[in-house]
Amino acid sequence: MFTILPIQGYIDQIDGFFCDGIHAGLKPNGNNDLGFIYTNEPCNVAAIFTENRFQAAPLKHFLSHKEEFKTNFVLINSKNANALTGKKGVEDINTLFSSLDFKEKLVNPLMSSTGVIGNRLPLEKLIAGANSFDLSAKSGENLSKAIMTTDAYPKTSLYEVKLEDGKSFKIGAVAKGAGMINPNLATMLCFICTDAAVPYSDMKEALNINKETTFNAISVDGDTSTNDTVMVLANGKSKAYDKDAFIEALRVVMHEMAMLMVADGEGAKKVAAFEVRNAATKEDAIKAAKALSNSLLVKTALFGEDPNFGRIASTIGASQIACDDEKLVISYNDIVVFDKGEICFDKETEEKASKVLKQNSYKIICDIGLGNCSFVAYGCDLGYKYVEINADYRS
Amino acid sequence: MFTILPIQGYIDQIDGFFCDGIHAGLKPNGNNDLGFIYTNEPCNVAAIFTENRFQAAPLKHFLSHKEEFKTNFVLINSKNANALTGKKGVEDINTLFSSLDFKEKLVNPLMSSTGVIGNRLPLEKLIAGANSFDLSAKSGENLSKAIMTTDAYPKTSLYEVKLEDGKSFKIGAVAKGAGMINPNLATMLCFICTDAAVPYSDMKEALNINKETTFNAISVDGDTSTNDTVMVLANGKSKAYDKDAFIEALRVVMHEMAMLMVADGEGAKKVAAFEVRNAATKEDAIKAAKALSNSLLVKTALFGEDPNFGRIASTIGASQIACDDEKLVISYNDIVVFDKGEICFDKETEEKASKVLKQNSYKIICDIGLGNCSFVAYGCDLGYKYVEINADYRS
Repeated sequence: MFTILPIQGYIDQIDGFFCDGIHAGLKPNGNNDLGFIYTNEPCNVAAIFTENRFQAAPLKHFLSHKEEFKTNFVLINSKNANALTGKKGVEDINTLFSSLDFKEKLVNPLMSSTGVIGNRLPLEKLIAGANSFDLSAKSGENLSKAIMTTDAYPKTSLYEVKLEDGKSFKIGAVAKGAGMINPNLATMLCFICTDAAVPYSDMKEALNINKETTFNAISVDGDTSTNDTVMVLANGKSKAYDKDAFIEALRVVMHEMAMLMVADGEGAKKVAAFEVRNAATKEDAIKAAKALSNSLLVKTALFGEDPNFGRIASTIGASQIACDDEKLVISYNDIVVFDKGEICFDKETEEKASKVLKQNSYKIICDIGLGNCSFVAYGCDLGYKYVEINADYRS
Repeated sequence: MFTILPIQGYIDQIDGFFCDGIHAGLKPNGNNDLGFIYTNEPCNVAAIFTENRFQAAPLKHFLSHKEEFKTNFVLINSKNANALTGKKGVEDINTLFSSLDFKEKLVNPLMSSTGVIGNRLPLEKLIAGANSFDLSAKSGENLSKAIMTTDAYPKTSLYEVKLEDGKSFKIGAVAKGAGMINPNLATMLCFICTDAAVPYSDMKEALNINKETTFNAISVDGDTSTNDTVMVLANGKSKAYDKDAFIEALRVVMHEMAMLMVADGEGAKKVAAFEVRNAATKEDAIKAAKALSNSLLVKTALFGEDPNFGRIASTIGASQIACDDEKLVISYNDIVVFDKGEICFDKETEEKASKVLKQNSYKIICDIGLGNCSFVAYGCDLGYKYVEINADYRS
């Protein structure tokens, strides 16, 4: 058996990984806005990207490499997404890398961007900023702040995986994301670093297995961005590897990052797990759970701490899945409020359900009663703060 | 040729139609909450309903009639949707009608409800209220107020259609709807009355033709309700009829009602027409236009009067239609901000675009440049008021 133990610290604790973040002049408030991850030996790299048809320039740049390649450098900026910038957006990335003082050290350097769509990169600032990097720095903290946009807090995690053969590897992540996160990945960046000796094909497979129940199961507002990226970098330094342990450890890291993002949904105060049980098909379970996590009327009811189960039912009906109100059971945690056509919502039950909604996190369970397929989607409430943040995000 | 002229007044001006609204004790603030439409001769009736899988009891009750039937009475209440009430919800409607003092006068009486989902109808209040009706009343104004829920204002219209043969008929509507209105009809009720001598099959055909570009093209928050109904009642009293004129007049009425609803999106101050041009297929045009009108990030940008065209482009990309940023053109009215891969957003253009967004209504045009299919969807902005209204709608 293997064990996956959380440890204190940032990705800089992983052997061979260096990182830092600085203020390069993009954020007017002086906060960090440019960071990097550097490894002294080239890494296997695998990534999954947004399903938005307008992929941002950094994604096009990544995909211009051949299927399997190695890299030792990822440059990450916030405040400008380098999206909708056409061919020039990709040219800008190449110009940037060829202007760096330390360009001779770089193997297939990559870039990742987040921020406002539809502006060219401020190349001068980025080049000057990057040329001030210390490639031997170990500050995951500075990096985690550099990639933030509307995030209320930085998002990182770190684990040690001990294998049966006595060997061990580390795996950790730094991520940003709050708002625009939706069932199909949206403005979120997540960089996962490991010293496991994982082959490229296993990295790709593990990413695809784990994305459905983690990043694709969270929703803040149902929009998908042009830039979303989950990237795994593996330098193999630990010489340790076990496929099952790697898949499971990656799942733990991805799930933790996804939960941190949904809890940081712009202005959100509550995390709700929408568990759809016993749907006729897996597709139905996923559709209904995601519809619930995306519904504005459900989200505002959670904000108001109102056990308005009518909106829950209505959203399930509107999702067009096979359903029948004579079979449907709705509960808030273990408080049943609707049971197969019967409304169970006396004063006492209403008070109990309201109490559940006053908590910071809870489950809303919808038993469809037509099959045996289930799915859990995660969402948050939506309040005044969301409007405040998004009415003037550009400024 | 025929002409369609707006006239002052309510549906009570149409020959043979009677209506009123009263306070029956459902709304705590004493406002009207129960109304009726009565005709002294039975009407042809056709209706289209919500696509929500959990149809409310009044819809099930309507559909329990045979395909083509006549009615002379529609009872409408607000504050309680009679939805998710199972078989008892339909039984309650039958109990109600059989308890009315004037039940002998009624031919296939119908009911329509709007309000909170998941509560049984307060039968005693409704019966007492209905028994106080004066069936010879002519107060469209009282009725229009009785059916309101979160509406900021009543919604009515009235037209006279003059035909080539010198005959004429009237057509008018009373409607409610604000919030939860989405591309596939959602909590909106619309009752269209006419004295045209229109056959049932033409009514049904005209409703289906016109719904796509009217009620199905508007969006407030992307949710669909359990109760949405558009009902046409025709008593034939004018003895006038022309199929083309009727279809066109019905379109005018449905479009006007749809626009009044979107302008009354809970807390909305702006109406935006999202015109998607030159998409590869009709499906793509509809998909992209509706995605724009539903996007929270687009809606909050409109609220902030921010010409954030990056969010427009991102939403089109996220809608999964065929698109290419080298072909895409985005404009606010006639102000082009993105032109086939080129960002045209200098200070002057930004100021012009901002000016457009300060207006109460405007067009956002996205030319996909891949075909010749177009669609216009209508949406509104989303601000603090929406959250306020929906965080505690039940109370």
